[in-house]
Amino acid sequence: LKIFSLSSNRPLAEKIADEVGVELGKLSVDRFSDGEIQINIEESIRGDNVYIIQSTSAPVNDNLMELLIMIDALRRASAKTINVVMPYYGYARQDRKARSREPITAKLVANMLQNSGVDRVIALDLHAAQIQGFFDIPVDHLMGAPLLADYFIKQGVAKDAVVISPDHGGVVRARALAEFLKAPIAIIDKRRPKANVAKIMHIIGNVQGKKCIMIDDMIDTAGTITLGSKALMEAGATEVYASCTHAVLSGPAIERLEDSPIKEVVVTDSIQLPKEKQIAKIKQVSVAPLIADAI
Amino acid sequence: LKIFSLSSNRPLAEKIADEVGVELGKLSVDRFSDGEIQINIEESIRGDNVYIIQSTSAPVNDNLMELLIMIDALRRASAKTINVVMPYYGYARQDRKARSREPITAKLVANMLQNSGVDRVIALDLHAAQIQGFFDIPVDHLMGAPLLADYFIKQGVAKDAVVISPDHGGVVRARALAEFLKAPIAIIDKRRPKANVAKIMHIIGNVQGKKCIMIDDMIDTAGTITLGSKALMEAGATEVYASCTHAVLSGPAIERLEDSPIKEVVVTDSIQLPKEKQIAKIKQVSVAPLIADAI
Ligand SMILES: Nc1ncnc2c1ncn2[C@@H]1O[C@H](COP(=O)(O)O)[C@@H](O)[C@H]1O
Ligand SMILES: Nc1ncnc2c1ncn2[C@@H]1O[C@H](COP(=O)(O)O)[C@@H](O)[C@H]1O
Repeated sequence: LKIFSLSSNRPLAEKIADEVGVELGKLSVDRFSDGEIQINIEESIRGDNVYIIQSTSAPVNDNLMELLIMIDALRRASAKTINVVMPYYGYARQDRKARSREPITAKLVANMLQNSGVDRVIALDLHAAQIQGFFDIPVDHLMGAPLLADYFIKQGVAKDAVVISPDHGGVVRARALAEFLKAPIAIIDKRRPKANVAKIMHIIGNVQGKKCIMIDDMIDTAGTITLGSKALMEAGATEVYASCTHAVLSGPAIERLEDSPIKEVVVTDSIQLPKEKQIAKIKQVSVAPLIADAI
Repeated sequence: LKIFSLSSNRPLAEKIADEVGVELGKLSVDRFSDGEIQINIEESIRGDNVYIIQSTSAPVNDNLMELLIMIDALRRASAKTINVVMPYYGYARQDRKARSREPITAKLVANMLQNSGVDRVIALDLHAAQIQGFFDIPVDHLMGAPLLADYFIKQGVAKDAVVISPDHGGVVRARALAEFLKAPIAIIDKRRPKANVAKIMHIIGNVQGKKCIMIDDMIDTAGTITLGSKALMEAGATEVYASCTHAVLSGPAIERLEDSPIKEVVVTDSIQLPKEKQIAKIKQVSVAPLIADAI
């Protein structure tokens, strides 16, 4: 068994290798002068079961190409099996045609992985569980909820808590976290006028005098979650927490989180946080043990 | 017949559409906040023969993903045929395993295009003609040499000229240009210690008192061609011209060309030149008529 880390999330890959009890494989990933990716695998992998750790977070196209080129190199070097660990699956929100003549890029990504010769994919909290069906190879679909629940239980937040789904689509996810916390749920009833702009309507359920824990699969521009936190405080919540598996945090996200009444933002390390996004409010729990188990 | 331009080279796409006598198709290509590409085709293409103009020049991974997403959208919108015009083919230099455990990224690109449902590819001066064989669909392989030759003939440079191959691998290409110019050829005998670093040895053939026209498929960092130009001047050439189909011009290329004894650098518009690379020495001839003919 060999584990290789590509560029997107080396700290996570190191933790996974640690948990599994192996060293990361030797590899060089460079750029030619014109920006083309150059990969060289620096140890024999002939006949090995190889795991590649790569989130296709931003820069998504670069990280995806890096992954596909690595798979090509492994296949040509006679790996026995090629297993892709993709803690964050880029383009997952393009999972259906919402309008005519749109692409379904999440399926394109699945096709590219599958056609390149991958044997198995390990994913984590896919934006839609249906993405598993975009593949004809085994997909292990892991869930971050137990890890996030653990954090809240250890911090003593679970007592008197309500788990909040920030939209109707997230109720199943909220339900799952609520079960771990033995807490009730509430739902924010909102409309989203266009992509990346969220508009909060009102709260279904009782949050008066409660600690609210909002949960989503990802926090991207943080519009939904920060507007939601205000609505919850107005509705009488004593404290608001936000939590998600994937800390995309693009555009105005950090500023919005800083300016919001949210006390803590609990995320996993599926996406590596660059320095400028490591603010005090954001707490990271590692998915390394979960992934190591699946390997 | 519908022609769509993606982001890499809109000026060329406009010229091609002009030559063919159609308007470019309506399309929006945007970025979400996290950098993911969003494409929407804004007119019906059901049952149409569609041509996409896209060079996979830098940023290569973004331009390639844009192309693949567009193909996905066209296929799902029931295009009759999908034809990809790729004036510059990114990753073409990764066309074989030069060392163990290297990828063959040019083949990966071919697979991605083919698996995404492309019916036909129109390419121009592929780094290796063998890349045609990476596809099982029709590939039209166009040549820029006649256009470049035309330029030199019109400028009166062809008289008393010698066509120079900057390395042994380029002799066939030099021979082709020389035939159009009715000129002899010479070869620069060089060794390249590592990627992007060129070392010139000596010249095979007579250049004394001659105008030298160096030809290559692409000029990337311009190391080969600028060192070659110095060697040619030292060997008694009266003037040195450089010419290529693909003006990659990465890293130190512009500075090197400016500082070299090269009089003119004659390139095609297969790659769009950003403002800062449009120096007086560089002359562009358009491949639009050639491509329009092939469409
Ligand atoms: N990277 C992205 N950033 C923001 N919105 C996106 C992104 N990718 C897809 N979308 C849009 O998000 C919507 C899907 O999100 P959802 O309704 O939460 O599944 C679709 O309308 C997509 O057009
Ligand atoms: N984008 C690139 N920039 C510079 N060198 C490259 C690039 N892609 C591939 N190469 C290298 O160029 C060599 C192939 O060039 P050639 O010998 O001219 O066919 C191989 O050794 C490649 O590793």
